Amino acid sequence: MRGVAADRSRGRTPPRTAFERRLAGYCKRTTRALLSVIPNGGPPHLYNLLCDYPKRGGKGLRAALAIATCKALGGRERDALNSAVAIELFHNGFLIHDDLQDDSFVRRGAPTMHRRLGPAIAVNVGNATNLLALRCVMNNAQLLGSRASELIAEETERMMRHSLEGQAIELGWIHDNVCNLRPRDYLQMCLKKTSWYSFIYPMRVGAIVAEGAQLVERFCRLGWYVGAAFQIQDDILNLTGDYQQYRKEIGGDLREGKRTLMLIRLLAVCNLKERRALERYLATPRAGRTWPDLIWIRRLMDRYGTIEFARRAARQLAGAALIEALVTFRAVPNSEARQFIFDLVTYVVKRTR
Amino acid sequence: MRGVAADRSRGRTPPRTAFERRLAGYCKRTTRALLSVIPNGGPPHLYNLLCDYPKRGGKGLRAALAIATCKALGGRERDALNSAVAIELFHNGFLIHDDLQDDSFVRRGAPTMHRRLGPAIAVNVGNATNLLALRCVMNNAQLLGSRASELIAEETERMMRHSLEGQAIELGWIHDNVCNLRPRDYLQMCLKKTSWYSFIYPMRVGAIVAEGAQLVERFCRLGWYVGAAFQIQDDILNLTGDYQQYRKEIGGDLREGKRTLMLIRLLAVCNLKERRALERYLATPRAGRTWPDLIWIRRLMDRYGTIEFARRAARQLAGAALIEALVTFRAVPNSEARQFIFDLVTYVVKRTR
Repeated sequence: MRGVAADRSRGRTPPRTAFERRLAGYCKRTTRALLSVIPNGGPPHLYNLLCDYPKRGGKGLRAALAIATCKALGGRERDALNSAVAIELFHNGFLIHDDLQDDSFVRRGAPTMHRRLGPAIAVNVGNATNLLALRCVMNNAQLLGSRASELIAEETERMMRHSLEGQAIELGWIHDNVCNLRPRDYLQMCLKKTSWYSFIYPMRVGAIVAEGAQLVERFCRLGWYVGAAFQIQDDILNLTGDYQQYRKEIGGDLREGKRTLMLIRLLAVCNLKERRALERYLATPRAGRTWPDLIWIRRLMDRYGTIEFARRAARQLAGAALIEALVTFRAVPNSEARQFIFDLVTYVVKRTR
Repeated sequence: MRGVAADRSRGRTPPRTAFERRLAGYCKRTTRALLSVIPNGGPPHLYNLLCDYPKRGGKGLRAALAIATCKALGGRERDALNSAVAIELFHNGFLIHDDLQDDSFVRRGAPTMHRRLGPAIAVNVGNATNLLALRCVMNNAQLLGSRASELIAEETERMMRHSLEGQAIELGWIHDNVCNLRPRDYLQMCLKKTSWYSFIYPMRVGAIVAEGAQLVERFCRLGWYVGAAFQIQDDILNLTGDYQQYRKEIGGDLREGKRTLMLIRLLAVCNLKERRALERYLATPRAGRTWPDLIWIRRLMDRYGTIEFARRAARQLAGAALIEALVTFRAVPNSEARQFIFDLVTYVVKRTR
């Protein structure tokens, strides 16, 4: 333990609802287990930095979903905890690389790793975080036996493949300055970039731990919808959020030229002159994009109601996810863990951080 | 196959010795197998880029060593080929990230990935290359059975850990501007950064494929020495090499402030005034380092004979490696593959690329 309690509370609002209290409980237990698997010692600028992002206090949503799915399906939290740690480690490893790739300034209320220590160390720490996650996945052989362990390893490889492909799609849109995207392209990208690792993978892993079997296809649709709703809400918070709660730089996505649903919609509905101006903005190298540009685009979004459009889409996706959850968990007896999953679906579009 | 023959021959000198002909043969077969496992299609800027570095024509030294070790110990090339592909994929994934971390300009005679497509895509392609390597490692379960496959997976995790720790050591020296290193620090860093993934891991994997057992500790010392000799020779070529053959930018290491044996020795033997000037140079941000600075340091190295010092060290390490090879392979009957390993030890300090 490295002073988790003190660190995790920094800049956080206390949990208010029963769901948030449960989430905080899962998060606390996962973070404790996570910090205990990070090696002590080693060269400077490696294992000490593996604690950095986790100690800044994430929500622990993915780990909680894996544990809750396992428990809802009759499994034990202690069997799922190691996989939950792996999931959170992957998440933190992805964040470190993602922040570098997007050149973000702030993560969870502090400077991003590459801004603080340079891209070289950030790449290395991201890799080491992913490797430690893999080590946890391999440790399942002792904890769960070889059959479940192999299934989880296969799921892990599949999840990483989808995530990297999703990342490639999004980076490719920015690199090639693609300006004619449709909402369906966005949803497809979300499926790979966000839904798979944040929702589908945790549920599938939780189910394998509980059931030891591979009947995990049933989580795809639910995970896709809730993941897309989550990502849209994240993009909305990036535009409209309160920095004290969101703890990332507001407007960063616009500066990056990220193809959010709001921007895709705006490009489709604005007039030709505005569209040309937007395309010119997106073709400008990052350093040449100014604050007045950002304010102009933000106002254009307000005028065309594209943020409200995205909010509606997120709510509809959350609704569709709730229906999918009912289908997926229809044969599962009610429990606190089962309820947690349903509450999570509503939470993703209501959250403010 | 995607036009390998044409690509691979670009800027290459034809093999001259029997060893080089054999190395070229191993390389050709590994590259063919490697390109066949890269997925077709997928999003732009991903799988097509996985072919980029491999098609530029590396030496294929690591794959060759794995196959030769397997064959020397009585195994079959076809059983080792999949692992040889994984080894080369890891190597290429490391190179992509390493080029970004060092901000190198040129790799194998063409612009580095991050210089050509930006750091975001380079990080992603490096990750995808490592993931594909992991996929190959996992495929061993079908090819070699679960026992050998698990051993190789464990070796892979260990190798990645050593490599990331080695990278952290080297990056930390630059980041913290450490100027009081000893040759033994350098050798320790080499063990982790270079020797493990380039020599120890390939031999251990080759032995596991051949013998199915874990008696692989015997390769550590041999791999360490030959790896250190290899790294020193690489650093010497970076200072003195012929660009046509070396195909990386000459002097890049000096510009990066890389702690090579030549620089470590120079800091130890130069006079106090020169040392202060060197420390100031190394404390200067990369962009502020000028060509006259580089030329001055290079002349200083010539004056104090530190390149010759490093050449001697590489030769001594290669000699020690040859003795270790005799010990390690004393019970192994002579064969072409066994001879290849001995020739490889001499090759690493004689090579010009």
